[in-house]
Amino acid sequence: MTQAKIRHALSVTREADFAAWYQEVIAEAEMAEESGVRGCMVIKPWGYGIWERIQHLMDARIKAAGVQNCYFPLFIPLSYFAKEAEHVDGFAKEMAVVTHHRLIQDGKGGLVPDPEAKLEEPLIVRPTSETVIGQAMSRWVQSWRDLPLLTNQWANVVRWEMRTRMFLRTSEFLWQEGHTAHADRADAMAETLRALEMYRDHAESDLAMPVIAGEKPENERFPGAVATYSIEAMMQDGKALQAGTSHYLGTGFAEAAGIKYQDREGGQQLCHTTSWGVSTRLIGGVIMTHGDDDGLRVPPRIAPQQIVILPMLRDDDGDEALLAYCEELRAALASQWALGEPVRVLLDKRAGKATQKRWGWVKKGVPLILEIGGRDAAGGQVSVVRRDRLWREDGKVNFVAQSREEFLAAAVGELESVQASLHAEATARRDAQIHRGVTDLAGLEAFFAEDKRYPGWVELGWSRPTGAALDAVVATLKALKLTIRNTPMNAEPVSGTCPFTGEPAVERIYVARAY
Amino acid sequence: MTQAKIRHALSVTREADFAAWYQEVIAEAEMAEESGVRGCMVIKPWGYGIWERIQHLMDARIKAAGVQNCYFPLFIPLSYFAKEAEHVDGFAKEMAVVTHHRLIQDGKGGLVPDPEAKLEEPLIVRPTSETVIGQAMSRWVQSWRDLPLLTNQWANVVRWEMRTRMFLRTSEFLWQEGHTAHADRADAMAETLRALEMYRDHAESDLAMPVIAGEKPENERFPGAVATYSIEAMMQDGKALQAGTSHYLGTGFAEAAGIKYQDREGGQQLCHTTSWGVSTRLIGGVIMTHGDDDGLRVPPRIAPQQIVILPMLRDDDGDEALLAYCEELRAALASQWALGEPVRVLLDKRAGKATQKRWGWVKKGVPLILEIGGRDAAGGQVSVVRRDRLWREDGKVNFVAQSREEFLAAAVGELESVQASLHAEATARRDAQIHRGVTDLAGLEAFFAEDKRYPGWVELGWSRPTGAALDAVVATLKALKLTIRNTPMNAEPVSGTCPFTGEPAVERIYVARAY
Repeated sequence: MTQAKIRHALSVTREADFAAWYQEVIAEAEMAEESGVRGCMVIKPWGYGIWERIQHLMDARIKAAGVQNCYFPLFIPLSYFAKEAEHVDGFAKEMAVVTHHRLIQDGKGGLVPDPEAKLEEPLIVRPTSETVIGQAMSRWVQSWRDLPLLTNQWANVVRWEMRTRMFLRTSEFLWQEGHTAHADRADAMAETLRALEMYRDHAESDLAMPVIAGEKPENERFPGAVATYSIEAMMQDGKALQAGTSHYLGTGFAEAAGIKYQDREGGQQLCHTTSWGVSTRLIGGVIMTHGDDDGLRVPPRIAPQQIVILPMLRDDDGDEALLAYCEELRAALASQWALGEPVRVLLDKRAGKATQKRWGWVKKGVPLILEIGGRDAAGGQVSVVRRDRLWREDGKVNFVAQSREEFLAAAVGELESVQASLHAEATARRDAQIHRGVTDLAGLEAFFAEDKRYPGWVELGWSRPTGAALDAVVATLKALKLTIRNTPMNAEPVSGTCPFTGEPAVERIYVARAY
Repeated sequence: MTQAKIRHALSVTREADFAAWYQEVIAEAEMAEESGVRGCMVIKPWGYGIWERIQHLMDARIKAAGVQNCYFPLFIPLSYFAKEAEHVDGFAKEMAVVTHHRLIQDGKGGLVPDPEAKLEEPLIVRPTSETVIGQAMSRWVQSWRDLPLLTNQWANVVRWEMRTRMFLRTSEFLWQEGHTAHADRADAMAETLRALEMYRDHAESDLAMPVIAGEKPENERFPGAVATYSIEAMMQDGKALQAGTSHYLGTGFAEAAGIKYQDREGGQQLCHTTSWGVSTRLIGGVIMTHGDDDGLRVPPRIAPQQIVILPMLRDDDGDEALLAYCEELRAALASQWALGEPVRVLLDKRAGKATQKRWGWVKKGVPLILEIGGRDAAGGQVSVVRRDRLWREDGKVNFVAQSREEFLAAAVGELESVQASLHAEATARRDAQIHRGVTDLAGLEAFFAEDKRYPGWVELGWSRPTGAALDAVVATLKALKLTIRNTPMNAEPVSGTCPFTGEPAVERIYVARAY
């Protein structure tokens, strides 16, 4: 294969500059752009369409588990954070603070917050709704009959970020936050792990993004949590992306918010609570898992459009028959089902050159692109390219001519195949980049010090140190710009010695650079 | 009929105190509650479930029109409002103003906004996204090929309200805002009226809420709009509720934001823009249109659950067979389609007395409620009540016993019938409360001065005064606590004299008290 012949659609390759490539995919696939408001992005139709697909699939999973959606206020009174602050030395939180409720003219042609309209108590734009939901739960839970209480919210949240990156870290982002209350530890832990498994399966089945589900080390726990679990995905630069978290919170949050119930015997008990969330960050994960040097590739399950039909219009008498043929094709595809839903197909009739439009859809990553010319229409043919098999060996775009009937019979299978191929490709790459055999700290250092641009992850056995011993490990890793990702669930037993403590290893962990 | 025998589920009737009744419905149907944050509510699962249904149905209508969803930032820089302020004498806007981005400890155990983290330019929590979307459009529109540009956003917005009422007027509310840009007036006006018709049909078909679509008088136009249209619904207390608006904005907003395009001849043109929105206010409209003295009645199309099955559990050996029978019934119903979608049916297995659970669902307004006892299960029977025909003439709950097969064959038709009946009932009531025959101001005053608690609306012909003449009319009406709702679309021509100006009437208007 002579790669040199291929003229890729993007100006930067993943190999040359992964960060610049990431930004270019987002711009060229028209997913999002800077808004002019610091750290906040405008999510454009293609990016938002992917988010709608993620929401749709995740929401069905959430509802199937019996969780009910609610909506809680955007604003949280300052005092709700005071309790949290008591426990934290040098507490400082990057949050958006609302202090006034009116604007007036300043007499110099500008506007200012009206000093007369200063709030008695400042309001915080929610960074998470933990505290207000806890308060609501304390009202809603009275008796064991009210348990488990399973709630979820789809919302925007704000965390003032100094360094932002679209989808991965923005001051405002969109997410869902599940919050549940249970009668006992076993039930709460089961819910924590149910949410984790829901995320794992969503990532693998819907996003075609392989992940490792596991428990975060103690130092990475959500503040106040008894246990934090995550799904971790490997991006194409070998870095880890934490793509979803699920927390077992014990009774601490219930105690702070007063979430109590009367048990069957009439006694008062504290609830055990959980929380779990995924966000628009998932879209960043999809880009860095499936994108290539021609732009995004969207797994069919989350593609806003799975098939795009491009009529090669010529502004002449033949256009009418061509459009009629394409419209009939569109309708025939839309009446089919793929991956459990009606096929999403768009007939792109916009003005403009067909080739330019084609490259627009290639960069957006539509799974199947059809180009139909007047001769195809007359002969009952279609010309189709799979986005995941874009190039022929000779460097030409891999369009395949088929009869209309052949294509209609094969389309559903092709979409399923794209979904499976993207997952298989990402899994093979991830697995090849998980390195075992590092047995000591020097080996670890050497591995990441090698002049590999995208070294991947190291899997090793450790002794699960806690407290000061763990802090020492974290500091050692930090000096190498490394982090512990998680301890995988249901892993094979481990033997050997912990490279950090010299004690016997008791479980596996992944060590990696991370977003 | 001896109404005295009926013991209604609510403690307040519509007749006795409509405002208190409204609050009681919301509380007893568990739709929403105060959040502890001024003017912001917590939307509970049943209220949010109705909103999700509204979103689902409206979003399908929006997408079918070729409009694409996007997401714009929550925050808008203060300076974006300055231009607006220039045109407004004594400009003062009730908006939430973010001035700081960090909290720190005050040294006295409390928290304060960090003075070091004061924003250079305050940010406003969006009261609408008009300005940021206008700025985005100015980037996205270059050529006639980019038009029409059809965007929509589902979002939360904040308008600081001094007097709030749940769903009708809250400081934070949820809505969709459509924003579109067009090449010319005709295309923009067509979009304005398409959105108006979409809202009208949604209200009538989905919410079973009759509305009058028409143009607002000049004084009620959205600031800067060339024409504003609304749908107006009559609540059971005879007041009008503006339930949705659609604005033709001319080229004024395009000029302010710089939304220009190159036409086919290469010239620069300003776009004509529109905007249109509906909000969680619709839920308030549904309550005040369909609620009765037993709580809410939800039209099946927007009911989170259309059928609830209540097994009369006895905590004995018979429960297992009863639950199996109910589960089979649930599955048989869930496999049917009603009103274009799979039937939404819930088997309520929660602990608790069946009667208490029944009244909970009555107050929530589920269209069909089934109670199944052990004997029903053994005999293949069901006992069913339609929420819109709750009472028998003898004051007992109108449960009807049917064979399982009879019920399964009839269920879809029953749901369709409830949807149609609620609409017919509301329409008949609305039509009976629109009064014609008022020909002069004295008559108008007398009509509303009569000791009717819920007088309804007056339809009359007027001369469509503008400017100062209109101001005088508005002032006259205001003194009577009345407002002009709108001029209905496609109405019959009108004759006679305008009661306000004495000039010949040229069009119809509705005069009413309003929310």
